[in-house]
Amino acid sequence: MSFSYISHLECPKCANIYAHHELNQLCECGSPLLVNYCLDELKKDNEIIDKERNDLWRYHKLLPVTDPDHVVTLGEGMTPLLPMPVLGKKLGIANLFMKDEGMIPTGSFKARGSAVGVSKAKELGVTQLAMPTNGNAGAAWSLYSARAGIKPFIVMPLDAPAITRKEVAISGAELILVDGLISDAGKIVASLVKEEDYYDASTLKEPYRVEGKKTMGYEILEQTESHPPDVILYPTGGGVGLIGIYKALKEFRELGLFKGAQLPRLVAVQAEGCAPIVKAWEENKNESEFWENSKTAAFGINVPKAIGDFLVLEAIYETEGCAVAVSEEEISQAQRQIAELEGSFICPEGAAVFAAAKTLREKGWIKADEKVICLNTGQGIKYPDSVTVQPPVLQPGEVMPKE
Amino acid sequence: MSFSYISHLECPKCANIYAHHELNQLCECGSPLLVNYCLDELKKDNEIIDKERNDLWRYHKLLPVTDPDHVVTLGEGMTPLLPMPVLGKKLGIANLFMKDEGMIPTGSFKARGSAVGVSKAKELGVTQLAMPTNGNAGAAWSLYSARAGIKPFIVMPLDAPAITRKEVAISGAELILVDGLISDAGKIVASLVKEEDYYDASTLKEPYRVEGKKTMGYEILEQTESHPPDVILYPTGGGVGLIGIYKALKEFRELGLFKGAQLPRLVAVQAEGCAPIVKAWEENKNESEFWENSKTAAFGINVPKAIGDFLVLEAIYETEGCAVAVSEEEISQAQRQIAELEGSFICPEGAAVFAAAKTLREKGWIKADEKVICLNTGQGIKYPDSVTVQPPVLQPGEVMPKE
Ligand SMILES: Cc1ncc(COP(=O)(O)O)c(C=O)c1O
Ligand SMILES: Cc1ncc(COP(=O)(O)O)c(C=O)c1O
Ligand SMILES: [Zn+2]
Ligand SMILES: [Zn+2]
Repeated sequence: MSFSYISHLECPKCANIYAHHELNQLCECGSPLLVNYCLDELKKDNEIIDKERNDLWRYHKLLPVTDPDHVVTLGEGMTPLLPMPVLGKKLGIANLFMKDEGMIPTGSFKARGSAVGVSKAKELGVTQLAMPTNGNAGAAWSLYSARAGIKPFIVMPLDAPAITRKEVAISGAELILVDGLISDAGKIVASLVKEEDYYDASTLKEPYRVEGKKTMGYEILEQTESHPPDVILYPTGGGVGLIGIYKALKEFRELGLFKGAQLPRLVAVQAEGCAPIVKAWEENKNESEFWENSKTAAFGINVPKAIGDFLVLEAIYETEGCAVAVSEEEISQAQRQIAELEGSFICPEGAAVFAAAKTLREKGWIKADEKVICLNTGQGIKYPDSVTVQPPVLQPGEVMPKE
Repeated sequence: MSFSYISHLECPKCANIYAHHELNQLCECGSPLLVNYCLDELKKDNEIIDKERNDLWRYHKLLPVTDPDHVVTLGEGMTPLLPMPVLGKKLGIANLFMKDEGMIPTGSFKARGSAVGVSKAKELGVTQLAMPTNGNAGAAWSLYSARAGIKPFIVMPLDAPAITRKEVAISGAELILVDGLISDAGKIVASLVKEEDYYDASTLKEPYRVEGKKTMGYEILEQTESHPPDVILYPTGGGVGLIGIYKALKEFRELGLFKGAQLPRLVAVQAEGCAPIVKAWEENKNESEFWENSKTAAFGINVPKAIGDFLVLEAIYETEGCAVAVSEEEISQAQRQIAELEGSFICPEGAAVFAAAKTLREKGWIKADEKVICLNTGQGIKYPDSVTVQPPVLQPGEVMPKE
C-alpha cells in the first residue's frame, strides 16, 4: 500500500525509459516524457481512491509524489460539475455540464498542474525553477512555489492578463515581461536554464504537471459514475489538459474504473486567431505547424506551436474526437450568455468551449441526447477587460432618475 | 425525514414569531429576524449531515429551503481549511489555519449567503430584488439571481472593487453606483423598495443569507472534528458571517455535534478607519454608533453602522471573544506575507484577520498552543490595486540584463 504507485518515465516517441527519482526534462530524442504507474499492483490494492480527501490528492496513488510530506497543497481539485439546463435547452443539448475549474486556488485549472509539479519538484530537491507562461500557469507556479519554499523565475507576454503579473509579484517570484508571445518567453527561459542553475518548468519539458491536470479526467469519471460523458470539450493551448484527460481515461479503464463502452470523444477547441491543432486535424496530420501572428482574447490558448501537439492529436484521433475553432465574437457572446443564463462568470477560454459545443451541435456532430462536458478552465474575474460597463452614478441623497 | 427542519422566524429582540413560508423582512420592532429549526425532531433523524454532498447543501436539513428543486447552486461550500505552518511559526501560533473562502463561486464568501438567500427567494416566489452592497455581495447575488431567473437591482459605492461592477453587469442585473458609502446605497435601495415592487435583499433585512453564511461554522466544526478551534477571527462589516458562525456553533452544540468544552472565542476584526464594533466592545456596549468618515482599503468591512451590531456584540460577549482594529499598513503587510510564505493571494479583509491574530498573540490574548482559525473571506485577485508591480520588459530575442 504505497502512497504512490509510480513506476518510471517513458518517452511516447522512442520508448526510452527514465527514473522518476531523478530530475528529468525532455527525452534525449526531444519528446516530452510521460509517467507510468504499476497499475497491475494498484489493482490489487483494495482502495484505489482515497475518498477521505476532497481534493485531487484523493488520487495520490496515481500521482508521482512518493512521500506525503512533499505534498504542497492549497486544497485544489474536486471542482463542481454543474448542470447547465437553461443554456443546454437553448443549444439543444439536454445533458450539458460545466466542469468549473474557476473554483480552484489561483482561479484557473493551472493550479492542478502546479500543485503536482511543485510537489514533485520539492521531492526531487529543486530549489529554483524557470518557466514561460501565458499568465495563469505563472501565477499558479509562483504561489505554489512560495508555499514550497522554491524560487521561481517567470517570463510572460506583455499582453497576458494583468492580474497574473500581480499574482506572480505578490508571491515574491521574479518576473520578466516580453513584448511578444509565449514562444518568445520560452526562448528567454531556455537561455536562463542553459546559463544558470534553473529547473526548466516549461510545459511538458517538466513531466509532472500533466499528472496534476489529468485529475480533471478522474474527477469527471467519478462525478458522472455510471453514465460517463459522450463528449468532453477543452480549450487547447499547450494541450496539456487534453493530454492529461486522455491519459486519465485510459488509466481508469485499465483499472476497471471506466464503465462506458467507449471513451468520451475529446474535442480540442481553439480560437480562429490561433488554431494550429485544428489545422493539423483538418489536414489529418500528426503534428502542427507554427501559427504566424496568432491573436485571441482567450489568451491562455494563444499558443502558436505546442511541444505536445502530437499527443493532443493522438488523443483526438484515438477517441474519435475533433478539433474546432471559434471566432472572437462567438467567444464573447458565449461568455455573456453563460453569465446571464447560468450565473457563472467564466474566462474567455472556457467560453470558447461552449461556443464550440454550439457549433458542433448545429453541425450534428454532437447529438441531442449526448452527455456533454465543457471545461471552464478559469474565472472571468481574471479578465476584467472582457466586460465593459458604464453604470449611472448618483450623489448621496440624489433620487433615482425615472425612466 | 424532511429536506429541511425549518420551523419559523423569530425576533431576537422582542421574540415575535413569523412564518417561513411567507415573505418577511424585518420584525415589526425593526430588528432582523433569525431562523429557527426543529432541532429536537432533527436529533431523531439518523442522518443530520448529508455527507454525499460536497457543498454547503450537505447541511440542507439545517437550511431554510424546503424543496430541493428550489436549490440554486454553483457548487459553493466545503472550502479548504489550510494549515499555515510557516506564518504560524513566525507569529508564534503553532496551530494556525486559514479557512479559505476564496475558493467559492464569485470569489468571496458572499456566495454562501446568496446561494441560500436566492434559493429561498425563489421558493417564496420573488421575481425581483434590490440591495445595497460593498461589491462582493452584489456580484454574488447578481450571478445567483441570474441562475434562478430573478431580476436584481444593485446599488454600490463608486469605490467598491471595480471587478464587482463587471460581475454584476455581465449577469444582466441593473446597476447604480453612488458616490458615497454603503449606507448611502442603502437609502437608494430603501426608496426603490418603497416605490416599486422589489424584495429588499439588504443584509439582515433579508433573513436567509445568514443561514448560508452560518455553514462556515458547521464546516469548521466538521473539518476540525475532535479538536475544535479555540479562536475564530472574522473580518466584520455587517457582521453576518460572525452572527452566522455563532448560530451554527450553538445549533451544532444543541444537536450534540460540538464536542468541545466551550465554544471557540469569536473575534470581530475591523480596520482602524472603520471600527464601530471595536469601539462598542471596548466601551462594553451592546450597540454601535455610526462611524463618521469611514475609510479602509479592506472595502468589504467599510460599514459605518451595521443593523445587526447587537447580534455581533452578543456573539463576542457570549463566547468571551473580543474585537480588534488593525491599520492599513498592517493589512497590506499581512497580505504580502501570506502570499510569500504560504502561497495564497488573499483579499485585504482576510489579511486584516491575520494582522489581528498577530496583535492578539503579541498581547497574550491568543496563547501559543491554541488552535486559531483565520477566515479569509475572498480572493486577492478581486483587489488588483492592492499590489503594484513594475517588471522589466524585454523585446523578443533581447537577452536578460546581467545584474
Ligand atoms: C484559462 C486557460 N485555459 C486554457 C489554457 C490552455 O491550457 P493547455 O496549455 O493545457 O492547453 C490556459 C493556458 O494558459 C489557460 O490559462
Ligand atoms: C471580502 C469581504 N469580507 C468581509 C466582508 C464583511 O462581511 P459581513 O457583512 O458578513 O461582516 C465583506 C462584505 O462585503 C466582504 O466582501
Ligand atoms: Zn524519446
Ligand atoms: Zn421584534
